Amino acid sequence: MTASPSSTPRQRVAVAGASGRMGHMLIEAILNSSDCELAAALDRADSPAIGSDPSAFLGKPSGLKIESDLRAALSKADCLIDFTRPEGTMEHLTVAAELGVKVVIGTTGFSDEQKAQIAEFAKKTAIMFSPNMSVGVNVTFKLLELAAKALQQGGYDIEIIEAHHKHKVDAPSGTALKMGEVIAEAQGTQLADRAVYERFGHTGERKADTIGFATVRGGDIVGDHTVLFAGTGERIEISHKSSSRAGYANGSLRAVGYLADKKTGQYDMYDVLNLR
Amino acid sequence: MTASPSSTPRQRVAVAGASGRMGHMLIEAILNSSDCELAAALDRADSPAIGSDPSAFLGKPSGLKIESDLRAALSKADCLIDFTRPEGTMEHLTVAAELGVKVVIGTTGFSDEQKAQIAEFAKKTAIMFSPNMSVGVNVTFKLLELAAKALQQGGYDIEIIEAHHKHKVDAPSGTALKMGEVIAEAQGTQLADRAVYERFGHTGERKADTIGFATVRGGDIVGDHTVLFAGTGERIEISHKSSSRAGYANGSLRAVGYLADKKTGQYDMYDVLNLR
Amino acid sequence: MTASPSSTPRQRVAVAGASGRMGHMLIEAILNSSDCELAAALDRADSPAIGSDPSAFLGKPSGLKIESDLRAALSKADCLIDFTRPEGTMEHLTVAAELGVKVVIGTTGFSDEQKAQIAEFAKKTAIMFSPNMSVGVNVTFKLLELAAKALQQGGYDIEIIEAHHKHKVDAPSGTALKMGEVIAEAQGTQLADRAVYERFGHTGERKADTIGFATVRGGDIVGDHTVLFAGTGERIEISHKSSSRAGYANGSLRAVGYLADKKTGQYDMYDVLNLR
Amino acid sequence: MTASPSSTPRQRVAVAGASGRMGHMLIEAILNSSDCELAAALDRADSPAIGSDPSAFLGKPSGLKIESDLRAALSKADCLIDFTRPEGTMEHLTVAAELGVKVVIGTTGFSDEQKAQIAEFAKKTAIMFSPNMSVGVNVTFKLLELAAKALQQGGYDIEIIEAHHKHKVDAPSGTALKMGEVIAEAQGTQLADRAVYERFGHTGERKADTIGFATVRGGDIVGDHTVLFAGTGERIEISHKSSSRAGYANGSLRAVGYLADKKTGQYDMYDVLNLR
Repeated sequence: MTASPSSTPRQRVAVAGASGRMGHMLIEAILNSSDCELAAALDRADSPAIGSDPSAFLGKPSGLKIESDLRAALSKADCLIDFTRPEGTMEHLTVAAELGVKVVIGTTGFSDEQKAQIAEFAKKTAIMFSPNMSVGVNVTFKLLELAAKALQQGGYDIEIIEAHHKHKVDAPSGTALKMGEVIAEAQGTQLADRAVYERFGHTGERKADTIGFATVRGGDIVGDHTVLFAGTGERIEISHKSSSRAGYANGSLRAVGYLADKKTGQYDMYDVLNLR
Repeated sequence: MTASPSSTPRQRVAVAGASGRMGHMLIEAILNSSDCELAAALDRADSPAIGSDPSAFLGKPSGLKIESDLRAALSKADCLIDFTRPEGTMEHLTVAAELGVKVVIGTTGFSDEQKAQIAEFAKKTAIMFSPNMSVGVNVTFKLLELAAKALQQGGYDIEIIEAHHKHKVDAPSGTALKMGEVIAEAQGTQLADRAVYERFGHTGERKADTIGFATVRGGDIVGDHTVLFAGTGERIEISHKSSSRAGYANGSLRAVGYLADKKTGQYDMYDVLNLR
Repeated sequence: MTASPSSTPRQRVAVAGASGRMGHMLIEAILNSSDCELAAALDRADSPAIGSDPSAFLGKPSGLKIESDLRAALSKADCLIDFTRPEGTMEHLTVAAELGVKVVIGTTGFSDEQKAQIAEFAKKTAIMFSPNMSVGVNVTFKLLELAAKALQQGGYDIEIIEAHHKHKVDAPSGTALKMGEVIAEAQGTQLADRAVYERFGHTGERKADTIGFATVRGGDIVGDHTVLFAGTGERIEISHKSSSRAGYANGSLRAVGYLADKKTGQYDMYDVLNLR
Repeated sequence: MTASPSSTPRQRVAVAGASGRMGHMLIEAILNSSDCELAAALDRADSPAIGSDPSAFLGKPSGLKIESDLRAALSKADCLIDFTRPEGTMEHLTVAAELGVKVVIGTTGFSDEQKAQIAEFAKKTAIMFSPNMSVGVNVTFKLLELAAKALQQGGYDIEIIEAHHKHKVDAPSGTALKMGEVIAEAQGTQLADRAVYERFGHTGERKADTIGFATVRGGDIVGDHTVLFAGTGERIEISHKSSSRAGYANGSLRAVGYLADKKTGQYDMYDVLNLR
C-alpha cells in the first residue's frame, strides 16, 4: 500500500540540526525508510557532536560524520530537511537554492520578510513550507473544514479542547488556535469574533455562535487536540493525539518524496496529501 | 444561523407511528420547530392511542387526535415522516404517491424488491430514503471517507470501536459495519477482504491492511462509534456519540425542509447535507 | 446479584413533585423495581396534574391519582422521595417526622438553618441527605480520594475537565468543584489554595501543586466529569458520564432500601454504598 | 511535595541490562533523581556496549563504564534494578543476596520454581517483586478493586477495553487480564466464569454477570486500558494510558527508596504505595 513508485529514485537526504531531538527523530526515520538514504548530517561548528557518527544514538553506526560545512554537505544531497531556527534556515536556503538542492522546512517562527525571501528561493529550487509538517495534523485540519461546513446548520456547538505537558507556557496551543481559524473560515467567519477562551463563575448560557477553548496542562503529554461538535442527542468529535515527534519526521519524508520530481516552486502539506 | 429562507412556507407534516418512542421524538421536534407544523398523527387502527392527543405526553396538547385513516391524514399534509415497519411504509407510500405527498422514510429493513418499488414511487412524489437519518452519522461517514483517502499511505492502522446498550443482540453494529464499508470503498477495496471481527489468544502481529472491530456492550448506552487511524507517533480519532433518538428526528426535519421545493425524485441525507 | 434479601419487605414509596421531570424518572424507576412499590404521588394543589394517573406518561396506568394532601399521602407510605425545593421539602419533613415516615432528600440548596432542622428531624425518623444522590458520582468521589492519596508523591498533575449542556450558566459545575475539594482534602490541603480556573495567553509553566479546571459547554450534554492524574509516561483518568437523570432515581431507590431497617438517624450515600 | 526525608541517604544504584531500551530509561531516571545515584551499569560480556559510558546516549557522560563483572558492580551498590530475563535475574540474585545488595525485579516470566527461589533470597536481602512496576498501573488495580466492590449491586456492566501497538501478538493484554482478575476477585468471583473475549454476529443480549474484553491494535500505541462500569443513565470509566516506559523507571526508583531501610523481606508495589 505504501510502496514508492519504481520511477522515483531513492532520495539522498541531508539533515540540519543532526544532534538535536528532532534531528535524531529524522535520522531514525530516514534509516528506516526504503525511499531515501542519509547523505549528510549537519550541525553548528561549535557543536560537541561534530565528527561523531549521526546515528550512534541508535547503536547503529551510519559510517557518516556530523559536519558543519554546509556547501560540502548539501553537494551530496538531493534534499535538505531543516527543523532548526529561522536564521539558520535562511542561511541554508541561500546555499541550497544556489546548488538546486530541495528543502523541506520544519522550522517555525519566520518573520513576514523571511517568508517573502522563502518565496523568492522557491523560484530557484523546490521548497516545502507548511505551518505543521505532521500528516495527521494536516488531515485533521481538512476534516475540521469539512465538518464545520456540514454542521454549520442544525445548532452544533463547537468546542476545542487541548492538552499539553506542564512545561508549555502559553494557552491555547498554536495548533488549537489554527483549528479554530480553519473552522471559522470554513463557516465564512472570523475566529476573533467567535472565540471564548475562559469560563469561570457566572458565565450565562453559551452563545450559539461561539467557539470555546478548554486547556489542560499536565505531565509530559506531547499534544492532544479534540474538536467537539455538540448537537441535540449527538456529538461528533475529531481528535488528533501526538505521542512523539515521529509524526513530524514521517511528514517530512513524505514531503521529500513529493518534491522528488519538482524543480522549483513552493508547496505545503495540503499539496503532499492532495487535500485541496 | 439556522433560519429557513423566507421563501419556504412552513411545511405541514404528518407523523406515522405517532404513539411509539420515535413518534414521540418526532412530534416533540416538530412542535419545537419554526419551519414546520404538526398536521396529522397516524397510528394503527388497533392502537389504544387512537383518538388521544398526540402531544399529551409532553403535557402540551396539540388539539389534534391520533387517527388511523391514512388518506384523511395525508390529505392534510405536505410531507409524511415514517419510522415504522417496511410493510406499513410501503402501504403509506402508495397513498402518498397518489396524493403527491412527500415522504421521509426512516424505516429500515426493506427487501430489494421493496427498494425497487420505492424508486418507482419517487417518479410520482419526492422521497427521502437514507440508510441513516441522523445528520451526525452521515457527516461522520463523509469524514471517514476523507480520512481514509488522505491516510491511505503512511502506515495508518484502522480500527472501529463501538459501544451499545446491553440489550443489543448483534455485533458489530450496522453503523460500525457501514463505517467499515465507507472506509474500504474510499480506499478502493472491499471490507470483506479486510475486516477482523475477533481477537483472542495468540493473534500474531496486526496485518497492515486489516480493519479491526471492537465491540463494547453495557448499560443503556445509546450508541458510540469511534474510528481510530493509528500511525507512528500520532493518532486521529473520529467519533460519533448518540445520547438519544433526537438526532434522527432532527435529521428528518432537515429532510422535510430539503424536499419542500422538490416535486419528484429519490434523495438521501448526502443530498440534504450537500456532502457529494 | 442484585436480589434484595428476603427479610426486607417491599417498601411503599411516596413521590413528591410527581408530575415534574425528576418525578417521572422516580415513578418509572419504582414501577420497574421489585424492591418497592408506588404508594402515593404528591404534587402542589395548583398543579394541573392533580387527579391524573401518575404513570400515564409511561402509557402504563398505576391506578393511583396524583394528590396534594400531604398527610393522606404519607400515611400510605414507608418512605418519601423528595426532589423538590427547600421550602417544600421542609414542610414535607415536618409531617413525615410526625408520622415516622422515612425521607430520601434529593433537593439541593438548603440554608445552614434548614440543614440544622433536618438534623433535628433525623431524631424522629430516618433521613437520607446527600449532596448528590447518584451512586456513580458518590463512587467517583471515593475513587478520587483513593487516587489523590496514592498519587500524592511522584509528580502527578491533577486536572478536572467537565462538559455540560449549553444552558448551564455557571462554571465549573458544582460536581467538578466538589471533586476538587475531595482531592484537595485527601491530600491534606485546601482547594482554594490550589485551584486554577482559567488559562489564556502567557500562562507560564504549570505549577506543580495546582489543580486545573477546564470547562466545555455544548449541545444537550447531561454531565461529563473527568479527572486526570498526569505523570511522566503515564496518565490515570477517572470519569463519570451521565446520560440521563436515571442515576439519581436509582440512587434514591438504593437509599430507600438502606433506610428500610432504620428507625431514626441521618445518613448519606457513603453509608448506603459502604464507602467509609 | 516529593522530597525524600533527610534521614534516607542517597541510594547507590546498579542497573542491569544497561544498554537496552529499559536500561536507558532507568539510567535517565536515576540521573534526574535527587534520591539516588548511578553506581554501576551492567551488561552481558558479549555486549558491544561494554566499556562505553552508560549515559552517552543522553549526551551527558556519567564517567562510568558499562561492565560485565557482576560481583565488582554490585559491590559498589546499595540496590540493583533488574529488567532483564529470568535466567539472568536469578544469577544476579545469587550474588546480590550474598553481598546484601537489595534488588528491584522488573523482569517477568519466572517459573513457579524460580518464584520460590526468589522468596528464599528474600530471607537474605530485601527484594521488590511485583507483577508490574508502574505506579499508575498499581494504583489503577486498587481503584478497580474499590469500584468493583462499590458497584457490585445496581446493575453495572463491566467492560475492559485495551489498545496496544500493531506488533503485539496476543490479546487481551496481560494487564487487561489482571484487571479482570482484580475485579472478579473483589466481587468474590472467578474471572474464568465471567470473561467474554469475543463478540461477533448474533451474540444475544449481554449477560449481567459477564466481564467483556475488547481489543484494539494499531500504530505504536504503548498501552491504554479502560475499564467501563456502565449503569443506567451513567457510566464510570477508569483508564490508565502509558506513553513510554518512563512509568516503569519511576516506579522502580520509588521501590529503591522503599527498600532503603529494609534488610530482608519480599515486597511489592502495593507496599510501596501503601495500598493494602
